[in-house]
Amino acid sequence: MSTIKQAPLPSANRTVFFVSDGTGITAETFGHSVLTQFDLKFKQIRLPFIDTVDKAHDAVRKINDAFQREGNRPIVFSTLVKAELSAVVFKSQGLHMDLIQTFVAPLEQELGIKSTHTVGRSHNIADTEEYKNRIEAINFSLAHDDGQSDKNLAKADVILVGVSRSGKTPTTLYLAMQYGIKAANYPLIPEDFERGKLPSCLPEFKGKIFGLSIAPERLSEIRNERRPGSKYASLENCRYEVNEAEAMMRREGIRWLSSTAKSIEEISTTILQEIKVDVRVY
Amino acid sequence: MSTIKQAPLPSANRTVFFVSDGTGITAETFGHSVLTQFDLKFKQIRLPFIDTVDKAHDAVRKINDAFQREGNRPIVFSTLVKAELSAVVFKSQGLHMDLIQTFVAPLEQELGIKSTHTVGRSHNIADTEEYKNRIEAINFSLAHDDGQSDKNLAKADVILVGVSRSGKTPTTLYLAMQYGIKAANYPLIPEDFERGKLPSCLPEFKGKIFGLSIAPERLSEIRNERRPGSKYASLENCRYEVNEAEAMMRREGIRWLSSTAKSIEEISTTILQEIKVDVRVY
Repeated sequence: MSTIKQAPLPSANRTVFFVSDGTGITAETFGHSVLTQFDLKFKQIRLPFIDTVDKAHDAVRKINDAFQREGNRPIVFSTLVKAELSAVVFKSQGLHMDLIQTFVAPLEQELGIKSTHTVGRSHNIADTEEYKNRIEAINFSLAHDDGQSDKNLAKADVILVGVSRSGKTPTTLYLAMQYGIKAANYPLIPEDFERGKLPSCLPEFKGKIFGLSIAPERLSEIRNERRPGSKYASLENCRYEVNEAEAMMRREGIRWLSSTAKSIEEISTTILQEIKVDVRVY
Repeated sequence: MSTIKQAPLPSANRTVFFVSDGTGITAETFGHSVLTQFDLKFKQIRLPFIDTVDKAHDAVRKINDAFQREGNRPIVFSTLVKAELSAVVFKSQGLHMDLIQTFVAPLEQELGIKSTHTVGRSHNIADTEEYKNRIEAINFSLAHDDGQSDKNLAKADVILVGVSRSGKTPTTLYLAMQYGIKAANYPLIPEDFERGKLPSCLPEFKGKIFGLSIAPERLSEIRNERRPGSKYASLENCRYEVNEAEAMMRREGIRWLSSTAKSIEEISTTILQEIKVDVRVY
């Protein structure tokens, strides 16, 4: 996606384990954030569904084996809710980063109630309203990808507009999957620029429209991967489309950002700040 | 998605803040895991992109205002990497759960090096190979959704099979978005059952095929939302299709799981354990 090459990081010769009684996704996501603070490469092993004492002992063996092999203490990020399981894993020779125990105890004191210690509860959510909303939002976003359908645009929380390949589709899917937001996306195409008007189904929804733009050079790179050497991908055409799209968004008073150097996480967070969508309050 | 109704949780009359110099997604995901250990409902406010001292002071004002309003200390999950910013936020009247400082200090000691303290680095990833892979995987999964294309199936990391509406599409998108895994999906349809054979393009890729099944009752519910009263959605037809699909997967030696009570996170984690896909080692 970019021509910037990153120098490979030196190896830490050390294994990181993500141990969880659920999917391990929280331990991994969080551990990942912490580890990127260090310019080292780690071997990573996820140990999900550690929900019995036997499996906990298995995990201990794997952690200790890595210690034997590498001569460096493995780093263990764990989200084991049951105390009997974390007690077992704690006996391993790793450096323990226990996310639950570290933060649950002070919260119990502050709130004056005991935690429910429910195993893997945050991801055992297939039966909740929130989960249902996420799946519905994914289906909505797929059905309203790339202007495929004008139907039910009134039900959209957000409508993204922008030239082809400006990052609309991955962003709408991320908004749906992460936040249960129904996000449609609508391309701005040369016919719209000639008419000098937004696609006719959009003006009535202006309050929830958000634009994505992109540097013409980057756009040309992306389009060339799909249709090498085409007029569609040429820098000249990309410049024209981006200029026209930005002029149209300014004229119509549509908020927009440049997706050029932004991840879908960053784009989505900005959109949520701008379009006040009411996201999962539980 | 389910007929199980959950009793509403009592309100904690307390606000939870997620404060970050980046998107705040890590703080929010993690905080969410911790809070679900308590049977209380919290008001939640995300404060992303807090990357200057001025913005940190703004955050402090919001936290203190909530304290004034509710009379209960707000809970503050923060992932502020820069010490000067976390020092400001720490002076607020909240209960502080500082994810970075809590775990980075012991890691610095263990690794014998200082952390880079790079702001929001884990999500400022739009220029990395890993990010590029994720976006490519999303595009691949969309192009290979629902058996749309047989092309490039050799490039797929995983091919999901199962009856229509068994959860294949959201799972492939989650695998792509979270792990950069190229996941195709292929429906098993009545014609396949009549022939008694897998779709002809699949057998050569058996090593990376994984099946999703689902309880016929649940499948009938889901299909009735789309096509109420149709034969397609009838319990009798759903029983037939699920039986045939499971028999075919057993006959062909395809690993499968039931998606009935599982979230896409749980399904994806199980698939990754079964199909040994090499996921982002950095």
